Order: sequence, then C-alpha cells, then structure tokens
Amino acid sequence: MKKFTKLAVAAVSGAWLAMMTTASFAESTMEKIVRTGEMTIAVQTQGPPVSFINKDGKRTGLAVELAQMMADDMGVKLVVQDYDWKGLIPSLLSGKADFIAADMTPTAKRSMQVVFTEPVFYSETIAFAMKDSGYTSWRDLNVAGISVGATQASSWADIARAKISNAELKEFAGGTAQTVQALTSGRINAGVSDKATIAGFMSSIEGLVVLDGDISREPLGFAVRPDSTHLLFALDNYMGLIRADGRLDEKLEYWWNTTNWEADHK
Amino acid sequence: MKKFTKLAVAAVSGAWLAMMTTASFAESTMEKIVRTGEMTIAVQTQGPPVSFINKDGKRTGLAVELAQMMADDMGVKLVVQDYDWKGLIPSLLSGKADFIAADMTPTAKRSMQVVFTEPVFYSETIAFAMKDSGYTSWRDLNVAGISVGATQASSWADIARAKISNAELKEFAGGTAQTVQALTSGRINAGVSDKATIAGFMSSIEGLVVLDGDISREPLGFAVRPDSTHLLFALDNYMGLIRADGRLDEKLEYWWNTTNWEADHK
Amino acid sequence: MKKFTKLAVAAVSGAWLAMMTTASFAESTMEKIVRTGEMTIAVQTQGPPVSFINKDGKRTGLAVELAQMMADDMGVKLVVQDYDWKGLIPSLLSGKADFIAADMTPTAKRSMQVVFTEPVFYSETIAFAMKDSGYTSWRDLNVAGISVGATQASSWADIARAKISNAELKEFAGGTAQTVQALTSGRINAGVSDKATIAGFMSSIEGLVVLDGDISREPLGFAVRPDSTHLLFALDNYMGLIRADGRLDEKLEYWWNTTNWEADHK
Repeated sequence: MKKFTKLAVAAVSGAWLAMMTTASFAESTMEKIVRTGEMTIAVQTQGPPVSFINKDGKRTGLAVELAQMMADDMGVKLVVQDYDWKGLIPSLLSGKADFIAADMTPTAKRSMQVVFTEPVFYSETIAFAMKDSGYTSWRDLNVAGISVGATQASSWADIARAKISNAELKEFAGGTAQTVQALTSGRINAGVSDKATIAGFMSSIEGLVVLDGDISREPLGFAVRPDSTHLLFALDNYMGLIRADGRLDEKLEYWWNTTNWEADHK
Repeated sequence: MKKFTKLAVAAVSGAWLAMMTTASFAESTMEKIVRTGEMTIAVQTQGPPVSFINKDGKRTGLAVELAQMMADDMGVKLVVQDYDWKGLIPSLLSGKADFIAADMTPTAKRSMQVVFTEPVFYSETIAFAMKDSGYTSWRDLNVAGISVGATQASSWADIARAKISNAELKEFAGGTAQTVQALTSGRINAGVSDKATIAGFMSSIEGLVVLDGDISREPLGFAVRPDSTHLLFALDNYMGLIRADGRLDEKLEYWWNTTNWEADHK
Repeated sequence: MKKFTKLAVAAVSGAWLAMMTTASFAESTMEKIVRTGEMTIAVQTQGPPVSFINKDGKRTGLAVELAQMMADDMGVKLVVQDYDWKGLIPSLLSGKADFIAADMTPTAKRSMQVVFTEPVFYSETIAFAMKDSGYTSWRDLNVAGISVGATQASSWADIARAKISNAELKEFAGGTAQTVQALTSGRINAGVSDKATIAGFMSSIEGLVVLDGDISREPLGFAVRPDSTHLLFALDNYMGLIRADGRLDEKLEYWWNTTNWEADHK
C-alpha cells in the first residue's frame, strides 16, 4: 500500500518533471543558446550564393556569413549543419537546428509549420533587353507583337505570362543562359529572369541592360520553430541593426546583387 | 485509505490533465487550424467595402477576399462569422473566431485585449478642393480667411481643427456628400474626408481634386488573441508576401483606393 | 501512512501551485498592467533629452513623454523608476519594471537577455563642415589630404576611421564642442558627430552645415522581458499608430532632431 502510494506519487512527479523539461518549463531556444554557447543553423549543402562549399572546400555564402556575424556579435560559436532543401524544415522541427539560414520564401503553407523572420533579402524578377531596343521599363513589353523569353516551366515564365500577358512568351529549356542567347541572336525582344542571375551575365554580354522596375518581388527569410519567439525577435532586431549600419548591404552587394563572390569562391 | 490516496492522486492528475488541455499544453490557434483544416474569421456584417453582403446576397469585401486568398494558399477552408462591430472583439476572445478580419485601428486600449497584425491598409485623411482653386497641398489651406468643411462631429473634423487650425472649420450634418455639395456650390474653399470616400465622388463631380499630402494616416489591421503568436506571424508574413508580389495592391486598388467594386457589388 | 500520502500529494500540489503562479499560468505583463491599472517603466536618471530631471526638478524627456502618452491612451497610470544606465536591464529582468524606456541600441548581446521593440528613433552619425568648404556629401571627405575631427575614443571616431578611411582622423578630448572649435579655427576640414548633437550647435555657430547623407544609423528602441510578447506587440503597434498620425514626429522634432527642448527645460 505504501509502496503503491509512493509509486503513484512518483508517477505524477515523474510525468510532471518530463512535462517541465519538454513544454513550457523547457528552456527557450535562446536560453539553450546562452547556456551552451552554441547556435546551430541548418543550411542547404549546395545553394550558391546563399550557402555552399567553395572551390577550396570551405563552407561559405551569404546566409552563412550573416549567421556567423551574428554569432560573433553574440559571443557564441556557430555550428553549421548541411541538409538538402527538403531536409531543412524537418531538421528545424526536430530540434537539430536552432534556425534555418536559407533563401526560403515565407509561403502560407510553410508558415503553418515554421515562423519566418522579416525578409532578409528579396528575389527580384526583372526584364532584360539589349541597350538599343528602345525599351525603358518592363511595362513597355506588354504589347502585342513583342516576344519575351524565359526558362521553361520556371516561376519567371509564370510571372511573364501573368504580368506581360499581351506579349508572346517563348520558353527555353535549360536556364537563363539559353534565354540570353536567344536575345543576343535576335530571336526574342526581351527576357525575364531574376536580378542576381542577370547580374552574372552583365559583365560578359555587352549591351545587356535590365529594364526599369521589378516585375515581382519575392521576400526571402530565415525560419525558427513557432515557439522560438525570443530567437525570432533577436534575429529581426539584428538584421535591422546591420541594415542600419551598412553591414547587411555590404554582404548583399558582394553575394546577392552582383557576382563579385564568383572570383573568390567559384 | 487506499481509495483516498488513489482519489487524491487522481485529483492531482485530473486537474493536471485539465491544465494540459487548457493552458500551455493546449494546442495553439495555428495547430487547431492545421488539425481541423478550417480557419475561422470574425467579420462585420455590413461594413463595405471591407466586409459586406452584396446585391446578390453574397458575402464579400476586401478583408474577406484577403482571408480567402490566404486560406486557399494554406489549403484550408475559410469559415466566416458575422458580427456587428461591437461583437468582433468578444467573438475573438471567446475563441469563436481565430482572427478578426476588419478595418480596425490598433488603438492603445484595444491592444490591451487583442494583438494587431502589422497594418494591412491605411485610412488616409486628405483635403479636397475644386481644380481651379489654386491650392496644391492641404498645407495651403492653413491660412486665416479660408473655410474648410467636414462631416459634423467626425474624426475628419477633429483632424481639420488640429492640423488646419488657422482656417475656419464648417461642420455639415450627414456625410461627406453634404461637404462636397457645399464645395461645389461655393460655400467652402475646401473639404476634409478620407481618400477612399472622395474617390467615390471623383467620377461624378467634374473638377474635384485631392490636394497633395496626407493630413493624417490611420493604420488598419487584423487582430488575434494575445497568445496566438504563431498565427500572428503567419498573417504578417503572408501580407508581406502578397505585398511583394503585387496581389495586395491589386485588391487595395479594387476595394479600397477606388470605387471600382461598386459596379460589381452595389 | 495516511499523513505521508497527504503530505506527498500536498507537496506535488504545492509545487504545482507555485509552478502555476510563476510560469505559464502566471499572468502576462500586459495582464498585470490591466489588473493593477499601472504601467511601470525603467528610465535613465540623467540622460537628456531622452530622460532627465529638468531645471524645475521635473522628470521629463522624449522617452518619458512617449510612455506617458501611451499610458494616457490606455487609461492606466505611468510609474517611472530611475536607474543609472547599468541598472536598466537588471531592473527589467527582476520584474521591477514592465519595460525599459531609453535610447538603447538592440545589440546582439543585449538581445540574448531582453527583447527590443522595433526602432522608435535613430542615432544618425553625420559629418559637418563650414558652408564655404565646398563639400556636399560626407563621401566628399574620403580623400587623402583632408582632416576630419571627432571626440576621442568615441563611436564617431570609430565610424570615421572605418568609413572615411582615406582622410586623416584627428581625435579631440572632451566632447563635440572641442571638434566644432577645431573646425571654426581652421585646424580640421570637417567633423563627425550625431545629428542631434550638431543641431545644438547650428543656432550659435554661423556657417556650420551638415553634409548630405548619414554615415551610419543606429536604431534605438525600448525593451521588454522575452516572455512579455503581448506588451511588445502593443508597444510596436502604438508606435506605428503615433507615427502615422504625426504625434511621434512632433515629439522627435521637439526632443531629438532639434534643441527646441533646451529653452524649456535646461
């Protein structure tokens, strides 16, 4: 009888202890980072220029450098875990990583599982043409008789179809290189891609220009577990801080808006 | 004795289970949405153009369409519950609705009970005059000898009194129609109202112009319960996403900044 | 035996009650404010113009007035607690204050302990010169042969060293007054300080001009405990509200961007 009671009480206490360590009494993600002195991020194994292993076998990229800068300023060690794209969200939800540092769009579906930071950077869909074309803005292309190229079955093709609906859309298998080639050989009047990709062609293709205006912008951010609110606020505040002091723009200029990183890492 | 002990332990366990299902162990609002596949919003029964029943007896409006777009992108069913304005916050706090989709100003008092999203749209107080008046900006009106009209006892009258204090304020019973009439018949030099309301008069009153600059802006947003942080972040991220890709502006152009919706629904 | 059981159960219940009142079952900071009708802020004893005791012995300043405006709109009493700078974060974490109302930069290290609001205002580092110098932007100073002054061992000196690295940096003991004197006596070509500090010299030093562009911006915000999410959202929403209706700009114009406050309080 005594034994039974003790056991029963022990059972309650045991379950209660388990509860204390797994639910609201568990430390927050930020408290864990402070206690262990380590912040762990999940990154995509090969996703240049956001996260990748460079020509020297070194892990680098925009997201890795931003996370490293934050860890340095916090005075903690950054631990980087590699995943393929599909492994990123599961690694976060299982608690292996503290946050995902990738170029992930905060879609409505993903927001049902994870919580995104405010946008850290944007993927900007733009139109490009040859300098002597006479076009100024991407809106000038939305006219019957103009042909616009984009990679086959890409989001760029979808955007061109929706927003430049009066022009004829020509889709090219492969990548933006095929669209650029079609443009320089006169088979299309203009092309649609994203700003960062076209930046890579600007240095080698003379006369290639980006037309005024973003056709569409897609925010890209990092992601935490829904209950990691302290870490979320810390990430948002930090990005605001380095946006104000110029450090974020420096990183974006090197890694995202230009292909300056290629000479050093590719 | 044994019975007592069992009961006592059972009492602890029972209360503990109750606690687990009502407090921090209860599922979050987002977890409930994911589990049931339904997202429930509280809207105002008749509050065009934000939420109303149109000429065909169909529930529609800006807030309804934004919530429907999000539910579609999430892959869940949207359930719409009608309330009068005063019933909105109680319906949220009692758990009947997951969020309020209305044109609610995040006042300090309301923020003590609910948590607002970032502003989804703005009510902009502007000044209007006849084209040949020679006024360019609302600031040109802040001069002795000028008379400015606004609806009696409205927030527009308050704003005119505070910001255009050197002019004479004339208040008109009824609505902005009375102020517009006073303007066209030459009884006042200019009027004060909000941008969306004046947009409705622009098509029918020739020569009516909106003067440069907002006199005041009032943010309008949706609202969740204070502990629905995951849903709050999902709402903020979704609005950021559709602002970037142009879908929010499309809805605002149709429903809020113009009276385009009237031909279809009124 | 019976006694033992009762005690054991009581121990569980007692601990459980303690848990209920200290952890997730404790009221939130906002619930406490609503229940007591009091909102308590921690401010810096002497930190003009953000928080200070004026010539009449009255507690005032930008942060105090913003918190008072919010408390008035909420219909609660504002309680102000004085601390030296180092006492601010401990007073918050110990629960003595509901939030810190000061000009605190949301550094990565501080974000490990507290959560910052969105920036309420900014400290802007700018360059100043004499009107006849011919310089237009601070970027014009980044040339060999130019000498730039700043307060010794200040963040302004650090910023000048990093961003105007081609110029010669001269550091002056004391404060910005010494740098301004060096400028007017022709010992340096330009100086670096923050916008608000220089605003204080503009009225007395004829020909002193601020060069175009911020060299660096530092966000400044208020701070809450990591679990005070409801209060955090209420603060962010309130600042957005008074930014939109013009009340925040009025306060910033009086207290932060000019020295208008000095005549009334100094």
